[in-house]
Amino acid sequence: MLPFTLTILGCSSATPTSERNPTAQLLSHGEKLFLIDCGEGTQVSLRRLHIHFQRIRHIFISHLHGDHFYGLIGLISSMHLLGRTKPLHIYGPPILKEIIDLQLRASLTTLLYPLEFHTTQAERLEVIFEDEHISVSSFPLLHRIPTTGFLFLEKPYERKMRKDVLELLKIPVHLIPKLRAGEDYIAPDGTVHLNSDITIVPPAPRSYAFCSDTAYFEEIIPVIQGASLLYHETTFMNNREANATEKFHSTTGQAATIAVKAGVKKLLIGHYSARYDDLQPLLEEARAVFPETELTIDGITFEI
Amino acid sequence: MLPFTLTILGCSSATPTSERNPTAQLLSHGEKLFLIDCGEGTQVSLRRLHIHFQRIRHIFISHLHGDHFYGLIGLISSMHLLGRTKPLHIYGPPILKEIIDLQLRASLTTLLYPLEFHTTQAERLEVIFEDEHISVSSFPLLHRIPTTGFLFLEKPYERKMRKDVLELLKIPVHLIPKLRAGEDYIAPDGTVHLNSDITIVPPAPRSYAFCSDTAYFEEIIPVIQGASLLYHETTFMNNREANATEKFHSTTGQAATIAVKAGVKKLLIGHYSARYDDLQPLLEEARAVFPETELTIDGITFEI
Repeated sequence: MLPFTLTILGCSSATPTSERNPTAQLLSHGEKLFLIDCGEGTQVSLRRLHIHFQRIRHIFISHLHGDHFYGLIGLISSMHLLGRTKPLHIYGPPILKEIIDLQLRASLTTLLYPLEFHTTQAERLEVIFEDEHISVSSFPLLHRIPTTGFLFLEKPYERKMRKDVLELLKIPVHLIPKLRAGEDYIAPDGTVHLNSDITIVPPAPRSYAFCSDTAYFEEIIPVIQGASLLYHETTFMNNREANATEKFHSTTGQAATIAVKAGVKKLLIGHYSARYDDLQPLLEEARAVFPETELTIDGITFEI
Repeated sequence: MLPFTLTILGCSSATPTSERNPTAQLLSHGEKLFLIDCGEGTQVSLRRLHIHFQRIRHIFISHLHGDHFYGLIGLISSMHLLGRTKPLHIYGPPILKEIIDLQLRASLTTLLYPLEFHTTQAERLEVIFEDEHISVSSFPLLHRIPTTGFLFLEKPYERKMRKDVLELLKIPVHLIPKLRAGEDYIAPDGTVHLNSDITIVPPAPRSYAFCSDTAYFEEIIPVIQGASLLYHETTFMNNREANATEKFHSTTGQAATIAVKAGVKKLLIGHYSARYDDLQPLLEEARAVFPETELTIDGITFEI
């Protein structure tokens, strides 16, 4: 299995605090680094965690509230100033491209590297990136302005050959790809060896679902069903549900309910209102509904 | 005399480092807080220094390289989210207004407070703000894109009455404003008391000159002549003068030469290239030319 981890760069909502940056997460899969949202100060968080940010090739922006993208132009500029030549792919709402272009124009900057902009829409599920190992889909969330979640889904792993069987049956090497893909093996003497007898079940593909910002929204459940890890915003505690509804945000209980209904393996909560100094009560509320919950905290890494 | 201090919020050039934010300075005069430039992360620096940023009424942006303004939109947004109602005045190049407006539009934000934008030009000296205590002028620097310095100049203080004379001569209270403004006092018996005998010389008006970013540019000398405090960028050390010239930046020696020629009282250097971990050699080079030099360092406050 490829290494698959999530590092929290910012867990605050709306305004940064002394301790918490606005939303940004770094997803690492195999050799690839994906950045999800990019609040102000993200480039400094990356530096402090000794993450070489030129390795990031793909940046996904969920929506255009400032706490999710005000750090993007600074990161783009620093990548340029530090001599990047490799392409950078940015996925986000159409106006984001205008915002980037206007700011580059204002400083008379022509980037040294290709910046490929991919427009997202918040109407329906859509695969927006895909390679041999992973796919990324955007899907609609329910917020005040068009907002998408992102689902990172590993491609199925191939079955592995049983070593003992390989030696015993002396299976020709050129047949192995077909057997790993699921075919049975017919020996020279006509004996049929069922695939399940000669191969090992591969690990199940893992997935990471990122849902911020959103009101309670059951339409996401089929999309994130069974995710290995779900991040769902919890701006407010349960006693502020009216507040959450009015502002198209979620409570701890609502996030945990989505986790239960979607049958995910683990839930991360975050995007905490700055009114909460102590996050333990939020964790307790979520765990009361969905025990496999953890807090996002700036600088922490989770294995997926 | 009114309290007059300068707090360094960021002393880095181009890209922030783990230790140094990009350019931002907070000038405090009497009850007023002026923000000068606003690199990414400025709002967090203000929080960490426990500066109540809603007290800032005037923000001056020297030019549109990102390290001087990428933190502005986040600060504007946070002021809004935290319920500001008092006007905010921003002084900067015309495109800055477009950049702010576009980002507010993208998030469907209507600010709760009036944002008054004042366009600067980089062609000639111009008074851009004035009240009873201080005036602020912008003036051209020499950089790759239109860039202005800012000169903060106290209004002259009035003379003070000598207390012993007040009692001895029993001067009527209603005459005092005229005497403080410089008139002589003619006693009821016709005796003329020269103003210099009955009043005390007021403290000289102080001034702060902010010069970043700029190549070596002698045209600023008459503007900043005799400043109480001069900040002049020193992106490079002397051995990189060619580099500085090419990029329209200054060396330590050039900044110190400007300080000497302008006869300022004290020089602050900053906007250090990220290549310099140890700043002491920069300080030594500047002091070799102008001994009254200090380093800007994030979080430090200087009395003016």
